[in-house]
Amino acid sequence: MNALPKFFGAADPVAYGGKDAKNPLAFRWYDKDRVVRGKRLEDHLRFAVCYWHSFCWPGGDPFGGETFLRPWHHGTDAMAMARAKADIAFELFRLLDVPFFTFHDVDAAPEGATLAESVANLNAIGDIFEKKMASAKVRLLWGTANLFTHRRYMAGAATNPDPDIFTYAAGQVRAALEVTNRLGGQNYVLWGGREGYETLLNTDLKRELDQLGRFVSLVVEHKHKIGFKGPLLIEPKPKEPTKHQYDFDVATCYGFLQRYDLLKDVKLNIEQNHAILAGHSFQHEVALAQALGVFGSLDINRGDDLLGWDTDQFAMNVPELALVFHDLIKGGGFTTGGLNFDAKIRRQSIDPDDLIHAHVGSMDACARGLLAAADMLDDEALTGPVAERYAGWTASEGQAIMAGKRSLADLADRALASGFDPQPRSGRQEYLESLVNRYV
Amino acid sequence: MNALPKFFGAADPVAYGGKDAKNPLAFRWYDKDRVVRGKRLEDHLRFAVCYWHSFCWPGGDPFGGETFLRPWHHGTDAMAMARAKADIAFELFRLLDVPFFTFHDVDAAPEGATLAESVANLNAIGDIFEKKMASAKVRLLWGTANLFTHRRYMAGAATNPDPDIFTYAAGQVRAALEVTNRLGGQNYVLWGGREGYETLLNTDLKRELDQLGRFVSLVVEHKHKIGFKGPLLIEPKPKEPTKHQYDFDVATCYGFLQRYDLLKDVKLNIEQNHAILAGHSFQHEVALAQALGVFGSLDINRGDDLLGWDTDQFAMNVPELALVFHDLIKGGGFTTGGLNFDAKIRRQSIDPDDLIHAHVGSMDACARGLLAAADMLDDEALTGPVAERYAGWTASEGQAIMAGKRSLADLADRALASGFDPQPRSGRQEYLESLVNRYV
Amino acid sequence: MNALPKFFGAADPVAYGGKDAKNPLAFRWYDKDRVVRGKRLEDHLRFAVCYWHSFCWPGGDPFGGETFLRPWHHGTDAMAMARAKADIAFELFRLLDVPFFTFHDVDAAPEGATLAESVANLNAIGDIFEKKMASAKVRLLWGTANLFTHRRYMAGAATNPDPDIFTYAAGQVRAALEVTNRLGGQNYVLWGGREGYETLLNTDLKRELDQLGRFVSLVVEHKHKIGFKGPLLIEPKPKEPTKHQYDFDVATCYGFLQRYDLLKDVKLNIEQNHAILAGHSFQHEVALAQALGVFGSLDINRGDDLLGWDTDQFAMNVPELALVFHDLIKGGGFTTGGLNFDAKIRRQSIDPDDLIHAHVGSMDACARGLLAAADMLDDEALTGPVAERYAGWTASEGQAIMAGKRSLADLADRALASGFDPQPRSGRQEYLESLVNRYV
Amino acid sequence: MNALPKFFGAADPVAYGGKDAKNPLAFRWYDKDRVVRGKRLEDHLRFAVCYWHSFCWPGGDPFGGETFLRPWHHGTDAMAMARAKADIAFELFRLLDVPFFTFHDVDAAPEGATLAESVANLNAIGDIFEKKMASAKVRLLWGTANLFTHRRYMAGAATNPDPDIFTYAAGQVRAALEVTNRLGGQNYVLWGGREGYETLLNTDLKRELDQLGRFVSLVVEHKHKIGFKGPLLIEPKPKEPTKHQYDFDVATCYGFLQRYDLLKDVKLNIEQNHAILAGHSFQHEVALAQALGVFGSLDINRGDDLLGWDTDQFAMNVPELALVFHDLIKGGGFTTGGLNFDAKIRRQSIDPDDLIHAHVGSMDACARGLLAAADMLDDEALTGPVAERYAGWTASEGQAIMAGKRSLADLADRALASGFDPQPRSGRQEYLESLVNRYV
Repeated sequence: MNALPKFFGAADPVAYGGKDAKNPLAFRWYDKDRVVRGKRLEDHLRFAVCYWHSFCWPGGDPFGGETFLRPWHHGTDAMAMARAKADIAFELFRLLDVPFFTFHDVDAAPEGATLAESVANLNAIGDIFEKKMASAKVRLLWGTANLFTHRRYMAGAATNPDPDIFTYAAGQVRAALEVTNRLGGQNYVLWGGREGYETLLNTDLKRELDQLGRFVSLVVEHKHKIGFKGPLLIEPKPKEPTKHQYDFDVATCYGFLQRYDLLKDVKLNIEQNHAILAGHSFQHEVALAQALGVFGSLDINRGDDLLGWDTDQFAMNVPELALVFHDLIKGGGFTTGGLNFDAKIRRQSIDPDDLIHAHVGSMDACARGLLAAADMLDDEALTGPVAERYAGWTASEGQAIMAGKRSLADLADRALASGFDPQPRSGRQEYLESLVNRYV
Repeated sequence: MNALPKFFGAADPVAYGGKDAKNPLAFRWYDKDRVVRGKRLEDHLRFAVCYWHSFCWPGGDPFGGETFLRPWHHGTDAMAMARAKADIAFELFRLLDVPFFTFHDVDAAPEGATLAESVANLNAIGDIFEKKMASAKVRLLWGTANLFTHRRYMAGAATNPDPDIFTYAAGQVRAALEVTNRLGGQNYVLWGGREGYETLLNTDLKRELDQLGRFVSLVVEHKHKIGFKGPLLIEPKPKEPTKHQYDFDVATCYGFLQRYDLLKDVKLNIEQNHAILAGHSFQHEVALAQALGVFGSLDINRGDDLLGWDTDQFAMNVPELALVFHDLIKGGGFTTGGLNFDAKIRRQSIDPDDLIHAHVGSMDACARGLLAAADMLDDEALTGPVAERYAGWTASEGQAIMAGKRSLADLADRALASGFDPQPRSGRQEYLESLVNRYV
Repeated sequence: MNALPKFFGAADPVAYGGKDAKNPLAFRWYDKDRVVRGKRLEDHLRFAVCYWHSFCWPGGDPFGGETFLRPWHHGTDAMAMARAKADIAFELFRLLDVPFFTFHDVDAAPEGATLAESVANLNAIGDIFEKKMASAKVRLLWGTANLFTHRRYMAGAATNPDPDIFTYAAGQVRAALEVTNRLGGQNYVLWGGREGYETLLNTDLKRELDQLGRFVSLVVEHKHKIGFKGPLLIEPKPKEPTKHQYDFDVATCYGFLQRYDLLKDVKLNIEQNHAILAGHSFQHEVALAQALGVFGSLDINRGDDLLGWDTDQFAMNVPELALVFHDLIKGGGFTTGGLNFDAKIRRQSIDPDDLIHAHVGSMDACARGLLAAADMLDDEALTGPVAERYAGWTASEGQAIMAGKRSLADLADRALASGFDPQPRSGRQEYLESLVNRYV
Repeated sequence: MNALPKFFGAADPVAYGGKDAKNPLAFRWYDKDRVVRGKRLEDHLRFAVCYWHSFCWPGGDPFGGETFLRPWHHGTDAMAMARAKADIAFELFRLLDVPFFTFHDVDAAPEGATLAESVANLNAIGDIFEKKMASAKVRLLWGTANLFTHRRYMAGAATNPDPDIFTYAAGQVRAALEVTNRLGGQNYVLWGGREGYETLLNTDLKRELDQLGRFVSLVVEHKHKIGFKGPLLIEPKPKEPTKHQYDFDVATCYGFLQRYDLLKDVKLNIEQNHAILAGHSFQHEVALAQALGVFGSLDINRGDDLLGWDTDQFAMNVPELALVFHDLIKGGGFTTGGLNFDAKIRRQSIDPDDLIHAHVGSMDACARGLLAAADMLDDEALTGPVAERYAGWTASEGQAIMAGKRSLADLADRALASGFDPQPRSGRQEYLESLVNRYV
């Protein structure tokens, strides 16, 4: 930390201060060692800080430029700037006391004039990460390759009309996967940022889907070859930057994984803002991924329900988080996944400590949501009424139907029998909504 | 037609009058016997009039009641009213000279006090249809059962928490499938109107998906048992009436059909308004269904891009239709499917002849779109540039990659080679958009 | 209550039970006599139960019919049914211990064969209301006329292309305004349910706006003539049932009121679900109405952010409510307005007591939001930072600019002066969001 | 053109070639000298090429960087680059044979280290423009100042919490208005890019609206002082980059102009993409601006109905354009306004000639739309049925109502009279939609 000794105002890691703490930089709910339902909060939540939004983004948007003026963005020696950035990053990891971080290749290390140079840069920064991680708490939740920023990828990487660009992408992914493996990454992510189209007028949809299937299959093979243990994660997103992205939502990704026989090796990394852009609640996407057996990890953030683009705000909405965590814990919680802060401070939040406030506020909101979820599960507040509502399906006739012991004709005959007139029962939605409000 | 002798102002079937026809009730583009790309327009387009919107809906909306005051909606003898409705329906089929119609069980025949009565009513109306069809041109594109209007289905039919309601639905579907079979229906449709949820608080998502898979499987088995030749069609819709419907969009339905091993027997019936409610263009849904091999039929209508509910307006947008039909014909056109007018006149269109104007206008718009599509295909206006854009994938290295002859390492090594620096090429979107404008 | 003696399960009014109350039909937060910031909670919140959703709606939606099977909806004597409905309504008012209710003319009394009959029916029910109100706590927050359900209004009431329909609407409004006056209504509402258009193809926009201006002016004149003391309230809604409604949002209504010189007599009744359909947050609409001096009353409910129609769910979202009430109290709170439950239980909530659970849950959520808001105001949690952020505008140069003492040239000259280079300051959004989370 | 002699492939201006022209760079519909309804097409349409999208934007988006690699974007001498850019711009104006262009201060000239330097740069480029315009056809439709890109404006310009930033903006606007005046600009535009908020938590809404009113008033005063003849134009946009923009839509701007007494000097510049982001059709916004007397000019482009951000695509949709131009011509057409191509080629359209194809295609689509509109007006295809529909309002009773000769009581009494029962008439929407299809 010699180079940038005073970037943050805070010097000591943020600590738990109890619900009534006056210090704005104390946790009020995130007591990491508190055990609920058999696990420490830290092990439930598995927070990760992301590199791109917090250390790489200069604060620009489509209508305006840099606002943050980070010292490490202004210089001429790209590798020196990358090292300075790493110093700041690990300082934030320390201050937040988070167990994980995440990065893209180009977040960590500058692109060179050739792929060979880019890979060399990545490996050099990989060495620095390795050294820093040896003496720090933080571990790598996942790594990934950025296959969408450079102009060569403007029409996609795996789904590019040019097989040479597919090939270039393969080169980047091998390097990123291998450095992720070397750093003990628990997962490897493939976000299809531009795997989609701008217009169908120039697009061969079927061919592009097959290309994407091939690409992911190649990565799966390589992962096994090098002995990478974690799952691959693909990340649903419906649109933006492209008009349509092939990994639209959980259901679409599930169909894709089935089609290309990838269900065994690939899981999903689900993001709140991507969920709502696809017209789904965050809870829906998590619940569906669990129902389909493809749940992997979460990019924790929030979108603005009234805006049509990815705002990637820090998640602060406790009632929403409580329901998501309810389903998460009910399904067994994270294995290799975690809560990655794919969230960015607003471009007007230009003070260095805004980065800390944002993470602390969201970690606290998550902790509070998780505690509420645990209480609901303990009380069977929701699971009880649901079990009761579907009781008919666990009784004998319901089981016979599901076991394939009834034909359509069997059922139709029964329905025609005299006096058969099943009556609906209340869904009790408002009662359940009020009930949840007692917990959050 | 004794009972309702003068409902429509028009007496003779609408005929083709040429582009400059002055008669508002002449076709300007739909010259049914004109042959393009080897088929008559009538055989390309396979228009069907639907029963529910055109003969059953009284003109109500959530904020207002009946506006149409159809004579057959006002009476005390439900079967007599159903017969009068059938008379009017077949008169409209005749006036429009359409080759097909479609209906739900409860559109055609009144529900009785018991399922047995309902089935008897349906079969009695089936007899009338059979007789009318013997002397008319019109055939049955598809039949279906309404499993969403009655309060027993308020929480779904196949996905109901109560297996007895699943059973009741089975009774309705058997009868509707059998009458469809008897009438020579070319397909049978299952629209999951309330197969979804209002709130996850009271829902067991995984269980409901399994129920839906079971239900469709039962219908497939029964279809084979009775020798029904056509495919089953499920119909993607993302939401409305429920908050979330399981058949969200084409990609979701595809994943569902794979999961429950139904790809062989079930195809999709795609609707424009449902597509845009799911955040997709109509062309996207059609192209995707074709790419995935699940294309079946179309519900032709249009939604309002700025409204969030199913407006089911008559399709009038020639440029949109031209692109959809471009992909449709490129993929081989309809086999058992067709263009079903799942479209309703506005509730202010209270004159009987508004029904005729709406269909004629939309049939003409479809014909015009199809002619434009045929011209584009003849000229390879779009297929040519697309083939050129992906030429690399039909060359040897592209083929080797897709054939699995390259590992990630092979590709990565090639990417690292000196001088490997593939450059992007223009997507030419505006040029192609202008080009399409020459055809529409 | 002879006729319907056991409709609700509950017999006694819901009472405050404290935060840990086990009884599901106790208030946990709504302690009506608790005084915060100088007023009792009941006087802050001024809850009203609405007639239409709770007593008139049978549970239908565009894809399905009645689910509730209310006894008072099934009969042949319309006035007897209306009286039975009134009994149930006043029983619910009693059980909820609410200070207000609201109704449309046709909610309360059946339409007759002529307007004269309809008015007579309304006045007869008005007599019953008057008698019941004499011995009950409940008062009338506002009355209104339904100018959108009957087919005569299918193309609008005031904005109808036919002046005779404008005239008919005038007849309805006079009667409804006068019965509202007689019952001591604190406001009179004009919701422009179909004052809008379905298509511009058949619409004279300018003429219709002028008609609407004329109509509201007529009502203003009549209100003064009969000595009605309360304000008129118009209610912003952007769309549904029509494609476009003239009272789109707060800003649009404000422009309309200015244009037709109605600002003095007309205020706004703002609804959460209408706000989000217009692309605004509820808080935005409330804050804007206050800024523009047109705030009147609130229709308290919530929409689903992911659905494009008016779901009118019961408001349960405490964090959202807290911010709205923060601005409400900061602006002085209600004068004649209140929180009207323009909210409906889901159509699956078919048990009578679901009506009670819904209101109790939402009243509690509102109370909790209000308590949080009061705490934030007491602590100046938000008002403090805002005042500090704009401090420059209360200093001399800022005041001089706003007072018109600086020309553009004055300011430009100052900006050109050497060394003038104002720097941006952090907006601190995440810090403020975290801060709010401490209160809710 | 010495510096960049071969940027475009085309050398000669695009000319009209007739509907069947084979040359992709010929106009098929835009025959500029063709006279319809008394005016040449060029004078109806008044096309303008914009500087920012076509010459300044490098092809980046929120997920990727530069794709275009324009030669004038790569250099070290900012003024030399600006001059090279001007050469290319005027070459495109010549090739397209457009009568107008538009620019922001910072599009044309680089920002300096101080405002004084920026103004000097702008004036120097103004000199170059003046010289080029002397020998070219192109004139200035409007100029404007960019008050949203620089970080100083991150929290707004006129609505900034800091009056010094308001002051800085005044300095920029004076210079831009004066150079616009010097170059004979026909209008001056004020787009409130960041006049809005990110969060209400830190915002004083009322104060910011007053600031905006003050700012526009200052510009109006200065415009009069320097003798600038054209109107000021404000530009409605609902959101993006900010969460909420004060100039949300036409209705909101109208209310604003009334509130701050600006209706006389300020009109609106309406954009298709902004209209749909606000939930309105383009036609609605144009028709409303005309109805309210605030119509000024058009930013012609198109958004994607399924995307939630400003895509600014080139307008190619003839049916939509035809209806907009129908209303435009009906209202008298442009006076000082025109059709400004605030449209950008896709970032994948990296060939220089893509810029030409895009403009030519859209100019042709506009011309075709205008010709269709003129035909509809000539035939009174829409104006006839509309006049007939509202005939009651031009008859005596309708006029009496609108003239204030009827009180609410007068009308109510008439409505109560025996036999008064006005019946609705068909809105004929589908008939009219079909009719329009004959023209487009």
